[in-house]
Amino acid sequence: MSDKASSADNQQGRLNVNLSPDYIVGLVDGEGYFSVTAAMEHYKTYSAHRVRLVFGIELNDTDGQILYNIRDWFQCGRVRLRKVKKENWSNRLEYQVRDMVSIREKIIPFFKKYSLKLPKRQKTFAKFVEIADMTEQGTHLSESGFQQLAQIANGLHHF
Amino acid sequence: MSDKASSADNQQGRLNVNLSPDYIVGLVDGEGYFSVTAAMEHYKTYSAHRVRLVFGIELNDTDGQILYNIRDWFQCGRVRLRKVKKENWSNRLEYQVRDMVSIREKIIPFFKKYSLKLPKRQKTFAKFVEIADMTEQGTHLSESGFQQLAQIANGLHHF
Repeated sequence: MSDKASSADNQQGRLNVNLSPDYIVGLVDGEGYFSVTAAMEHYKTYSAHRVRLVFGIELNDTDGQILYNIRDWFQCGRVRLRKVKKENWSNRLEYQVRDMVSIREKIIPFFKKYSLKLPKRQKTFAKFVEIADMTEQGTHLSESGFQQLAQIANGLHHF
Repeated sequence: MSDKASSADNQQGRLNVNLSPDYIVGLVDGEGYFSVTAAMEHYKTYSAHRVRLVFGIELNDTDGQILYNIRDWFQCGRVRLRKVKKENWSNRLEYQVRDMVSIREKIIPFFKKYSLKLPKRQKTFAKFVEIADMTEQGTHLSESGFQQLAQIANGLHHF
């Protein structure tokens, strides 16, 4: 269990299931996502290129307990409740990994080892990795590098 | 490959992926369904209780090729295209098993051996099995049995 687990999580508990890499790949092919936001952020005295990578899985909250198991499996990320205000719609539970160290050291190596099987997800993941590599190399810090990265990020949402 | 495969399927081809039971369970937890319809059908000279069980997986057609691999895995069922007429919505590919012999001899034993992990899916599957057993025993042929079965089937859609 992650040391970040709150007492609220503990009360909720985990499902009594054995996860396997193949099961996680199947669930992520169905319900997971890899997203990138590339934006120029303007402050008083300077502007900065900001690139955010997120790996996530979203489920109805009634099904969502397994996301705590998955967080324990990856030993990173957070699970949070997203309230849906539409009538007759379930609230959603969302597992997200947003910190770059966990994405580079845990998420990317996992999905390199255990390939996603749906072509669309594979392509998205390949671009996600490409962008993670570029940010590690600092490509996004230059204007031209940032434009190049933003173009890839933009393509990522059009699969 | 199923001997029912049409030349259209062959042209479309399969993905070059190795399926595993755990992957299928993960994908079905995300995108699969077990449904039951129980209806009284009226004809000129008689009425009949009709119970239909369907196991299915639905994906966007761009991701859907894997459904042909899954049909080959289970050696039963059909894949069909469902056109979606809303603008900017993808067409859907749907894998369905509707014949009771395949459901009893292939689908149910598979998911009994390799358990679904999401609680909602587990409950739906348990009721699906219960109804399959009842139809095998002919419970649905009597009026009281049919009412009992219809009540379970109704509950199945409220998870």
